[in-house]
Amino acid sequence: MINMRRNLKAAILGSTGLVGIEYVRMLVNHPYIKVSYLAGKGSVGKPYGEVVRWQTIGQVPKEIADMEVKPTDPKLMDDVDIVFSPLPQGAAGPVEEEFAKQGFPVISNSPDHRFDPDVPLLIPEINPHTISLIDEQRKRRDWKGFIVTTPLCTAQGAAIPLAPIYANFRLDSVFITTIQSLSGAGYPGIPSLDVVDNVLPLGDAYDNKTIKEITRLLKETNRNIPESYPEDLSLAATTHRVATIHGHYEVIYATFKEDVNVEKVRESLDTFAGEPQRLKLPTAPDRPIIVTNQDARPQVYFDRWAGNPPGMSVVVGRLAQVSRRAIRFVSVIHNTVRGAAGGGILAAELLVEKGYIDKR
Amino acid sequence: MINMRRNLKAAILGSTGLVGIEYVRMLVNHPYIKVSYLAGKGSVGKPYGEVVRWQTIGQVPKEIADMEVKPTDPKLMDDVDIVFSPLPQGAAGPVEEEFAKQGFPVISNSPDHRFDPDVPLLIPEINPHTISLIDEQRKRRDWKGFIVTTPLCTAQGAAIPLAPIYANFRLDSVFITTIQSLSGAGYPGIPSLDVVDNVLPLGDAYDNKTIKEITRLLKETNRNIPESYPEDLSLAATTHRVATIHGHYEVIYATFKEDVNVEKVRESLDTFAGEPQRLKLPTAPDRPIIVTNQDARPQVYFDRWAGNPPGMSVVVGRLAQVSRRAIRFVSVIHNTVRGAAGGGILAAELLVEKGYIDKR
Amino acid sequence: MINMRRNLKAAILGSTGLVGIEYVRMLVNHPYIKVSYLAGKGSVGKPYGEVVRWQTIGQVPKEIADMEVKPTDPKLMDDVDIVFSPLPQGAAGPVEEEFAKQGFPVISNSPDHRFDPDVPLLIPEINPHTISLIDEQRKRRDWKGFIVTTPLCTAQGAAIPLAPIYANFRLDSVFITTIQSLSGAGYPGIPSLDVVDNVLPLGDAYDNKTIKEITRLLKETNRNIPESYPEDLSLAATTHRVATIHGHYEVIYATFKEDVNVEKVRESLDTFAGEPQRLKLPTAPDRPIIVTNQDARPQVYFDRWAGNPPGMSVVVGRLAQVSRRAIRFVSVIHNTVRGAAGGGILAAELLVEKGYIDKR
Amino acid sequence: MINMRRNLKAAILGSTGLVGIEYVRMLVNHPYIKVSYLAGKGSVGKPYGEVVRWQTIGQVPKEIADMEVKPTDPKLMDDVDIVFSPLPQGAAGPVEEEFAKQGFPVISNSPDHRFDPDVPLLIPEINPHTISLIDEQRKRRDWKGFIVTTPLCTAQGAAIPLAPIYANFRLDSVFITTIQSLSGAGYPGIPSLDVVDNVLPLGDAYDNKTIKEITRLLKETNRNIPESYPEDLSLAATTHRVATIHGHYEVIYATFKEDVNVEKVRESLDTFAGEPQRLKLPTAPDRPIIVTNQDARPQVYFDRWAGNPPGMSVVVGRLAQVSRRAIRFVSVIHNTVRGAAGGGILAAELLVEKGYIDKR
Repeated sequence: MINMRRNLKAAILGSTGLVGIEYVRMLVNHPYIKVSYLAGKGSVGKPYGEVVRWQTIGQVPKEIADMEVKPTDPKLMDDVDIVFSPLPQGAAGPVEEEFAKQGFPVISNSPDHRFDPDVPLLIPEINPHTISLIDEQRKRRDWKGFIVTTPLCTAQGAAIPLAPIYANFRLDSVFITTIQSLSGAGYPGIPSLDVVDNVLPLGDAYDNKTIKEITRLLKETNRNIPESYPEDLSLAATTHRVATIHGHYEVIYATFKEDVNVEKVRESLDTFAGEPQRLKLPTAPDRPIIVTNQDARPQVYFDRWAGNPPGMSVVVGRLAQVSRRAIRFVSVIHNTVRGAAGGGILAAELLVEKGYIDKR
Repeated sequence: MINMRRNLKAAILGSTGLVGIEYVRMLVNHPYIKVSYLAGKGSVGKPYGEVVRWQTIGQVPKEIADMEVKPTDPKLMDDVDIVFSPLPQGAAGPVEEEFAKQGFPVISNSPDHRFDPDVPLLIPEINPHTISLIDEQRKRRDWKGFIVTTPLCTAQGAAIPLAPIYANFRLDSVFITTIQSLSGAGYPGIPSLDVVDNVLPLGDAYDNKTIKEITRLLKETNRNIPESYPEDLSLAATTHRVATIHGHYEVIYATFKEDVNVEKVRESLDTFAGEPQRLKLPTAPDRPIIVTNQDARPQVYFDRWAGNPPGMSVVVGRLAQVSRRAIRFVSVIHNTVRGAAGGGILAAELLVEKGYIDKR
Repeated sequence: MINMRRNLKAAILGSTGLVGIEYVRMLVNHPYIKVSYLAGKGSVGKPYGEVVRWQTIGQVPKEIADMEVKPTDPKLMDDVDIVFSPLPQGAAGPVEEEFAKQGFPVISNSPDHRFDPDVPLLIPEINPHTISLIDEQRKRRDWKGFIVTTPLCTAQGAAIPLAPIYANFRLDSVFITTIQSLSGAGYPGIPSLDVVDNVLPLGDAYDNKTIKEITRLLKETNRNIPESYPEDLSLAATTHRVATIHGHYEVIYATFKEDVNVEKVRESLDTFAGEPQRLKLPTAPDRPIIVTNQDARPQVYFDRWAGNPPGMSVVVGRLAQVSRRAIRFVSVIHNTVRGAAGGGILAAELLVEKGYIDKR
Repeated sequence: MINMRRNLKAAILGSTGLVGIEYVRMLVNHPYIKVSYLAGKGSVGKPYGEVVRWQTIGQVPKEIADMEVKPTDPKLMDDVDIVFSPLPQGAAGPVEEEFAKQGFPVISNSPDHRFDPDVPLLIPEINPHTISLIDEQRKRRDWKGFIVTTPLCTAQGAAIPLAPIYANFRLDSVFITTIQSLSGAGYPGIPSLDVVDNVLPLGDAYDNKTIKEITRLLKETNRNIPESYPEDLSLAATTHRVATIHGHYEVIYATFKEDVNVEKVRESLDTFAGEPQRLKLPTAPDRPIIVTNQDARPQVYFDRWAGNPPGMSVVVGRLAQVSRRAIRFVSVIHNTVRGAAGGGILAAELLVEKGYIDKR
């Protein structure tokens, strides 16, 4: 089985985009998933290395630089076993359906199918059991392939640290303020005049989708406390972008239905691990959450690449007791790694392990 | 009396600093306070226009550009009637005491005396009655002059909109996240490498002083509801700087002890006015708080100069009901104008009106 | 005649854009040109103050804020006497022709007609005599109206200080390096990810159009030295953008065919004045070029608003003798004021004075 | 001999600074130079990983993170074989002398000894023969150790591409404009308010030292053309910083005493190699200069880490014929790698190969 895995071939849709390049970077040294098809749009027919805007660490890997960018067409992907789809909203929906129909497992970072009732919205450490929705999806849609989505990067930055808290404490309200990076909006994305000497609020629509995704993720978190889902859990988010390139910074105030001890919260964050850690998946960080006690940390520049693989751990800091029933913490997540490409690869690894992805 | 006022002469300590220049800019057209003495440190003996770093709108006023920068020495200020002191922490304390001892009214933007029990921490719209502390101060210290302080810019950005809310509703908790500008830290202030492609947390000390000042300001706010100060009001702040030049942006979540109607909160903000408005003080904005309903506003770049005089109004937006007992809003305050120099001039005008400042 | 002028009514095309707002700001206090028609595209029918992105100093003028944005249609502009057109490349060309055909004087900041042989490319201080091309233009095209263009902001930043040098010295080569601001590219314009932690080269096309325009402007400069135009004058430009909002910074090395004395160059810059100064046009700065001797000036932030009206003077500094036949200097120009709207208004004033614009 | 080399132990002075961290990062995988002593100032006694501000790629290497920061004292460095000194100007001078006196080979990135007549100012590809100055230095000063310096990062960004041009063509004048990054000034270095929405000129002193160093480096370049050093070679530099973190961008115009063919210049740049390449030194990039033909490259963000090891190649682009006797090109150099730590390590490798550094 190990040997088989070594041969899994991946297509990356939108491969020259800001998430596409992280897929390329992370898969180049992957033990059993290999980049075999680079799909693009404007640059079809040209060498990847010439057309890509490599806005990440390092340089375009040599073995990838000369690969030709090809059309986004399932018929040309006979030998592809997995499709990673970081396509933009709107464009992604029908393309992903077509691929799933044609028999491909599609790991999507796009919002278009996130709230289809038979599509998992997967953070492998939080709701791995939701991959069983795939069975229902295939049956209902009569597909050989399937779609699995990963959540909005912003939602992940809050949901990952909130998951162990929600699992272990009687959470009442969550008040989130985000200070997000530019790469989350893609390229060209945010106009420069919106963020030089400015703080850009993203407005109600962005706030609301963030809340909606976190709500679903928490609902799907297994609780260790004897209580059904509190329908009155109140979540609010106020979202912004500033002139940072990568890394979402989020300030989270949480209130509880009973007194809470911040040291116990710290312990739940510190010891948090999930299925990927137990299965020792290749892209699983030892610790999904790294808690820092330094006063002026985390910082976006210094902490976004935390963990191993770099960028796969969420860094939590500024953890403090605000009142008997309220705490405060801050998180930094690498939005295009853990929040997109890295989360997608981790999802694929879980699906391989669980038998949902294999040589086609 | 009007005539007398027209002759009030002001000294500005630290006049070449980031708050000093706003004092100069705002006083140049003041109806009765005139800049007569520009005190500085490194640049004594040189023309103001040559040495000042004019990091604000417009150019150095012609009538000021040729004035010589002079030493910070009360003995040289015989004809000065008011002293504005935006000196940095530590340096300010003893200097301000000396001036007060020598008979000068000192309006300080510095933290050194903010928590002396006999020194007002004044926002003229919020706690004008606290100027009576001056009588006690003079008696206790045997001074002819006195010291009045204005609060930290960051505290003002939250306290001004919280004041009408606190006055009219049974506030329970306040959770603040700030995204502050660089000018609040003076020059040279924040190293560039701390804020390019980064979000800089200011840490516990800054968080705590923000809370401490807001707490005092709310305690001194007259309430319209039949309730004594709730000792269990819980305040928390998480403070940051990003690469904006002027203007502090603050996200504020407030919870209440009973159900609250966000429209009534809006009304209390919209109609907020205080002593400066009733007295029509020259530097009083018509509306201390301007509420915007635009989805992606306020923004630092576009709203920091709001009001008339520009920069004297706090802009509040993103006002929303989070749950039955919680609301959210955002504020933008011009930190060196309303939050420092403009607040200082407004304080001086109130003190003139109340008879505490006159020709010496 | 003065009285008539007081009634000139102006339409501003693209009035909500980055140059459009400077037209509005500058015309609000103009002695005889009044804003009477605000044309826009996406925002027709809405109040100007609600839809404009006011990325300049001050606030939207009260008398303008409630004006409705209207279609770009000459038929609706019966009472308009002048049309200012800061429309983008491509869109501008046919629209401007239509307006000229319908009898309107069109002052264009767009590139589309800059190299029509019968269209002036006007900097009023440099080549005022070229307005006589209008006569030829009207005759050839059988238009009652006409088009006058202003040069690319980047070209103006170099051409204005080069004009007196070219007029008085035997210039041989000019080597320009620009560090331009974002507003020159309009909104949305430059993607933020291109300029955060980056220097963005604009490439050959932008370099070349800069050179082409400067070349024409110098050719049209009257020389005080007994020499015909040197066909072998060599110009080169290397153009960039960085994350500044307004203000183009240009480093210029100039070599000469004979020994040159930098102090004489300084004098020619210092004393430079043209037709607008002699005619005392309302928008003419006293000095089109302000020479600073401070070592670390000009700086974009501190010098872009130089002059009176603010932003109408080019600041030159770092003037130095490099070798017997070479000098170096630096210029800062406010690209949307002197380099666009202000230059357009100054052109209009010259045309009024010369009888080309009057009540229609 | 190989075996001996494997044991060379290095001390890094100023190890927590911006150049210090690049030494640590680059030496961690070095084949024969090992980090054995981390000297610091404010943080003595603490673990390196806790106090360092790791403003570069990756994370603090695990094997280094727990090492204790120690005093800058030669007496404590018994087993150290090489000392790398990126100490700041002024502080470096006497310390480096003391180390050399105590028998240590000192590789300095500091300016203090750069113009001592018996101290090499070394770029290993350009003037490797100057290491023979060490013999004279030791004799004159009666030292067992010695000092070798590397040039200012800004000078290297121009001198490296100018060296093959100077070697092969009859260069007449060079006109440089730099757009430098913040890390070149260290931490805290440049105040944020100097570079947000601004371009900061560095002034005459910085311009002049840049020219002085390039002049010496070119003088020490072996020429392939039959001509002695032209005393009238004219160099000029205009230097600036903008808000980039790493990477100096330089625009260079060069004129020649005779007609020049830009394609031949390109060839001389493309094929440039030196002693480090011939000796296959571990830190030598295959190509010290990488020439790009892309129109809008090099860019600071995308090209500063060029080469292998990353950051050791200078990227040259925008190469163009300006006139028969003038060309233009642009360079990007990683200022703290090739321009400092990497250049220092390469110098050390050359000195090891030439027998100047060995086990002590």
